[in-house]
Amino acid sequence: MEKDSEQMAETTNQQERDMESNSLHQPLLKRNLTLSSSPLALVGTKVSYIESLDYEINENDLFKHDWRSRSQAQVLQYIFLKWLLAFLVGLLTGLIATLINLAVENIAGYKLLAVVHYIDNKRYMMGFFFMTGVNFLLTLVATLLCVFFAPTAAGPGIPEIKAYLNGVDTPNMYGATTMLVKIIGSIGAVAAGLDLGKEGPLVHIGACIASLLGQGGPDDYRIKWRWIRYFNNDRDRRDIITCGASSGVCAAFRAPVGGVLFALEEVATWWRSALLWRTFFSTAVVVVVLRAFMEYCKDGACGLFGQGGLIMFDVSGVPVRYHVADLIPVTVIGIIGGVLGSLYNYLLHKVLRLYNLINAKGKLAKILLSLAVSLFTSACLYGLPFLASCTPCDPSLVDSECPSTGRMGNFKQFNCPKGHYNDLATLLLTTNDDAVRNIFSTNTPSEYRVFSLVIFFILYCILGLFTFGIAVPSGLFLPIILMGSAYGRLLGMAMGPYASIDQGLYAVLGAASLMAGSMRMTVSLCVIFLELTNNLLLLPITMLVLLISKSVGDCFNPSIYEIILDLKGLPFLEAHPEPWMRNITVGELADVKPPVVTLSGIETVGRIVDVLRNTTHNGFAVVDSVGQVSEVHGLVLRAHLLLVLKKKWFLQERRRTEEWEVREKFTWVDVAERWGTIEEVAVTKEEMEMYVDLHPLTNTTPYTVVETMSVAKALVQFRQVGLRHMLVLPKYHGHGVPPVVGILTRQDLRAHNILSAFPHLEKSHASKKGR
Amino acid sequence: MEKDSEQMAETTNQQERDMESNSLHQPLLKRNLTLSSSPLALVGTKVSYIESLDYEINENDLFKHDWRSRSQAQVLQYIFLKWLLAFLVGLLTGLIATLINLAVENIAGYKLLAVVHYIDNKRYMMGFFFMTGVNFLLTLVATLLCVFFAPTAAGPGIPEIKAYLNGVDTPNMYGATTMLVKIIGSIGAVAAGLDLGKEGPLVHIGACIASLLGQGGPDDYRIKWRWIRYFNNDRDRRDIITCGASSGVCAAFRAPVGGVLFALEEVATWWRSALLWRTFFSTAVVVVVLRAFMEYCKDGACGLFGQGGLIMFDVSGVPVRYHVADLIPVTVIGIIGGVLGSLYNYLLHKVLRLYNLINAKGKLAKILLSLAVSLFTSACLYGLPFLASCTPCDPSLVDSECPSTGRMGNFKQFNCPKGHYNDLATLLLTTNDDAVRNIFSTNTPSEYRVFSLVIFFILYCILGLFTFGIAVPSGLFLPIILMGSAYGRLLGMAMGPYASIDQGLYAVLGAASLMAGSMRMTVSLCVIFLELTNNLLLLPITMLVLLISKSVGDCFNPSIYEIILDLKGLPFLEAHPEPWMRNITVGELADVKPPVVTLSGIETVGRIVDVLRNTTHNGFAVVDSVGQVSEVHGLVLRAHLLLVLKKKWFLQERRRTEEWEVREKFTWVDVAERWGTIEEVAVTKEEMEMYVDLHPLTNTTPYTVVETMSVAKALVQFRQVGLRHMLVLPKYHGHGVPPVVGILTRQDLRAHNILSAFPHLEKSHASKKGR
Repeated sequence: MEKDSEQMAETTNQQERDMESNSLHQPLLKRNLTLSSSPLALVGTKVSYIESLDYEINENDLFKHDWRSRSQAQVLQYIFLKWLLAFLVGLLTGLIATLINLAVENIAGYKLLAVVHYIDNKRYMMGFFFMTGVNFLLTLVATLLCVFFAPTAAGPGIPEIKAYLNGVDTPNMYGATTMLVKIIGSIGAVAAGLDLGKEGPLVHIGACIASLLGQGGPDDYRIKWRWIRYFNNDRDRRDIITCGASSGVCAAFRAPVGGVLFALEEVATWWRSALLWRTFFSTAVVVVVLRAFMEYCKDGACGLFGQGGLIMFDVSGVPVRYHVADLIPVTVIGIIGGVLGSLYNYLLHKVLRLYNLINAKGKLAKILLSLAVSLFTSACLYGLPFLASCTPCDPSLVDSECPSTGRMGNFKQFNCPKGHYNDLATLLLTTNDDAVRNIFSTNTPSEYRVFSLVIFFILYCILGLFTFGIAVPSGLFLPIILMGSAYGRLLGMAMGPYASIDQGLYAVLGAASLMAGSMRMTVSLCVIFLELTNNLLLLPITMLVLLISKSVGDCFNPSIYEIILDLKGLPFLEAHPEPWMRNITVGELADVKPPVVTLSGIETVGRIVDVLRNTTHNGFAVVDSVGQVSEVHGLVLRAHLLLVLKKKWFLQERRRTEEWEVREKFTWVDVAERWGTIEEVAVTKEEMEMYVDLHPLTNTTPYTVVETMSVAKALVQFRQVGLRHMLVLPKYHGHGVPPVVGILTRQDLRAHNILSAFPHLEKSHASKKGR
Repeated sequence: MEKDSEQMAETTNQQERDMESNSLHQPLLKRNLTLSSSPLALVGTKVSYIESLDYEINENDLFKHDWRSRSQAQVLQYIFLKWLLAFLVGLLTGLIATLINLAVENIAGYKLLAVVHYIDNKRYMMGFFFMTGVNFLLTLVATLLCVFFAPTAAGPGIPEIKAYLNGVDTPNMYGATTMLVKIIGSIGAVAAGLDLGKEGPLVHIGACIASLLGQGGPDDYRIKWRWIRYFNNDRDRRDIITCGASSGVCAAFRAPVGGVLFALEEVATWWRSALLWRTFFSTAVVVVVLRAFMEYCKDGACGLFGQGGLIMFDVSGVPVRYHVADLIPVTVIGIIGGVLGSLYNYLLHKVLRLYNLINAKGKLAKILLSLAVSLFTSACLYGLPFLASCTPCDPSLVDSECPSTGRMGNFKQFNCPKGHYNDLATLLLTTNDDAVRNIFSTNTPSEYRVFSLVIFFILYCILGLFTFGIAVPSGLFLPIILMGSAYGRLLGMAMGPYASIDQGLYAVLGAASLMAGSMRMTVSLCVIFLELTNNLLLLPITMLVLLISKSVGDCFNPSIYEIILDLKGLPFLEAHPEPWMRNITVGELADVKPPVVTLSGIETVGRIVDVLRNTTHNGFAVVDSVGQVSEVHGLVLRAHLLLVLKKKWFLQERRRTEEWEVREKFTWVDVAERWGTIEEVAVTKEEMEMYVDLHPLTNTTPYTVVETMSVAKALVQFRQVGLRHMLVLPKYHGHGVPPVVGILTRQDLRAHNILSAFPHLEKSHASKKGR
């Protein structure tokens, strides 16, 4: 959060990006080679200033008084509200997920019905133009909304949520506009048949709902209830957003336990038992809502929604038998998943860098990129099935099953004569959800030809790489599942008579392996697949596949979310300090930073204004000196200094104030707000001579380290306790030693920034790495 | 860890226990009313001294050199070994769990066959004597082993593991003797038909295996491999024991994901993603082992084991249908579960206090207590079925199913005429596992009479309270499941025609509700039940029941594990600081402790010996003073001072040593050991005058807080970072201020101890409590 004014000038030049250096560890934003580089990051597709969140309890006089005066009833209100919010988050996420599903199934359904109708009448060109046109329009709507109203709604949003829960506040991520654009954009993009899922966006939508509920409504229309104001702090908001993210995963996969575990394993940085429980409550509510709607829609009350939409595949009826010999193909799938997953991560990283160049050219470029991808996708989905030859239906199937002429069904007739079906059309000319269901279909060993599956696999590899980065809400889960299931099923067919596992289950295992290979999750993926497939007997081999894929993938590169975080320049703090961090002390870090700015306990207004104007620090050490003895009183936040200036709480003489004086002027509600910028404050010349007693507004118990502390251990403390500022104290005690040596922030403790300032550490960095 | 010599005298008088005060917050051990009370706790049934574990990385010169000199190959060795250990933990836990199951099923099976034979021949008295006699002998074996060889093997062991992972080292918990006694004792106690399970003991056995593997074998026969020595530190051992505990749960319930989540939610204090993954690997191995043995035993190769033993109940075939109206009985079950669960906790606490009085009377008392419980149990199990009247078999059942005359089966003939069965005998005259299976049986709506279920419920309430505390390995899961399933099934019968859920599923929900009401877990219980019942459709109502039960139970008292932890006096640090901890600073805590003991960087041998003899501290501040300036060099551990004295690394003159001098004398292997007591060290008079350079052995980067820090925030840091000692620095910087104000340990930060020293805080404590 530290930034000097010279640096400010530099940052404007940072738009020029370096494409030569393609190292994975090179973020898109060029940074200056000192510590405290500016807090810039790509948010959505825009470069924005970002700030840290403050999870530390600010123990100043006002907080202490407020806390002491809270009655038992208020504590109960607070607890009740916490649970009410968890309930509402679950309820609304469930409702919105249902809405999205309804919209997608109906839009895509009627579109497909029309296309099938044209094909039935052999009006192939007309069908092509209709489908391409509708997809084009849907993509256009989604893109326009994203580009003009909410650039942060593009992409999945999961990396930003992960960063938020780590303590990085990315602006405009959780607003009402973002949420609306995300909902509509997601409906448009998924219905347009693009190779992307609604899963990632649903997680973001869940987080938006949680954030909006937590702050009492959209930014401009916030409810000013006393109750809701208890939640106006970063700690409680973090908890609610965790609930929201879990609810989103749960709504996407109808997997309540999987949702909780996903939030735990992948998204959240801090976790505790009480939160586990509340999150679980939210996901339980989501499941109840989803089930209720499915009950309601069963009888056709929801248009084309029918029974579909949510359950992606249910293989609970399939008998799972396997023996020791089956471990070989399962291991092979795991290894392929790991290799392909890391390859996918590597290539996607390249593509995203390229797209970033295109997106930087302006809004028109973004729109054209999206539309080009849409056209290419439509053309492939419609055109490629013509390459596949027709297969006669298995005589054991009834006529209504094969061939099917509706929008769904496992054996699409497409351009084939009666009694035949086109297996590639079954996979391509359908919604993504149905494609997954079809490729997972069990007890249909001879349904797909190798040729069709190979085309399907290659197509979705290309689409999976080039669709993700366009300016529409897009999730990564579905593209990866489609790719993975293709090679899984291919392997199952190759095993043929030697395998005792069904081909459909091979497809499931392939999807799991690619997800583990790319996203590097284990327990949560395992549970999500368990809840999706509804078959516990599959669990042990799923576990094995996931473990192998993750291990193999970890040999090559980090997980896709980490790559995106890095690419966006979000200052995420890793759980493990790098080994070389033991060779450097926080004192050395503090030395290469500009000298720490300290304020006196009773400071002149002029000095405060001066400091606020000339620095961008968000926290200042408050030091009292009496004769030769000096004392660190604590840390005062920029927001609170601005509050004092705005409310003009000035003193004529240099004196300590009484507690009632502060409480007369400020309430804890004021203290919780973030108060604008110094430019908005007007201070007269006379006022500049007056004094401010900073003591009552100072956090008297900031966390501290001694300057001899190694960066590795300081980082552990910083992350575990959830800090924004960490005071560095001198190791010597005696006359003339300054009481505070420096203040460290998130940026100062990031490996990349430290290595820029201390390149000699890189050597040991390169040679030694291990957990 | 702090203790003065006067206190030492007091502690011997602490055997007298106060029975007047029955508050839940009163531990069994009487403590003196100052801070730093002595670290005594009940371990098993014995009072022992306990110590804290040290999870902090001790960054002294030796560590730094060792760390720098570790080659890439050694780092890989370390990582490989981590995974190998996780694998071995899973493998051995799986094998031992299978062994226990085999032994229990065979012993109990042949016993029951003989009893059934006597009953068939109407030799009722003979049957009674045979069953009681065998049970008596089995209990005797289990008790004798526990009492004479390993008192720590009594009970479930889960609270101690929970404390260990929190940083409390309970002695003799993870030795080879303890493990053997636990295995044999558990077989004996379960086969004796006592109302206890093998689940808790299996968790303890898993932890023992992990600990033994991690240290390279039993205490006296440890492998001295270089590889295994990397694990000779508390951090790595903590990780392995977490794997062991998860494997134990997994082996008990055949629930791999549930095992991981149990460790995460209930047992572990620190957690990170990498550990989640390794734990998951261990449980995956366990499942593979269990499945392999079940395959092998399917055809009768394992005596009476057959297909039974492990899967407790599989209701995957039962169609689950429920509507909104079913929410009412489900809610009722949840509320009953919460109320009964907390009542059970309350009563069990009383019984355990009473038992503690009995156990304190000596070994004979313990043995007699166990045997009395065994006799009472046998008499009830055999005698009560005679009270039940015979029920005619449902004609739709085949003859071999009803009545059954073997040891298993759902319709036991017992004393009834042909074509009739005794429903109470079905529940009582069987193993506990079979009883669970029988009471959960689905599609048998008229199997049980209300009268029989009421007797069953009352009997198991009594047994559940009076069996747990006896000196045999005992788990809490099974008694609670039996109690809960009884009232669940009763409620299902009461609902009768109004319910659309099967009675067997009601029994499952009852068991889940009582577990949540007593143990207060949610997510992990939910997943364990999911994996046990193998029916995902049950998930939403299980979640609902668990949430209600836990919420209701939390209104009354803490979870049973917390009660036991408290009762045993284990210094467990809670995640949440109490609200009143914001009103007191660490400086105030340090003031009421004896003054901090500091050593100079270069200290005389005499002073070191003196300090070690006259204090029981385990860490000492090392302070260098030059003129008026003093500097905290760091913290030196008692173990390292003893190491210096034992190796006689003394200097003739007062000088700083070079790095090679230290490395010549000590290796990192020495530094990792814990080195005996001061009494074992002999130092001559001349040596007393010599010097020791403490610098190279001092941890130069201890975590610190300033004395103005509130205890609440200090506690968060202490627990989150995993400390043993926390240095308190003065707030003033200047001449004459001591550089270290105090050292805080785990005992100083415990709520109970602080309240003893500062009783005025109690007021606010009583009036305000809330998370």
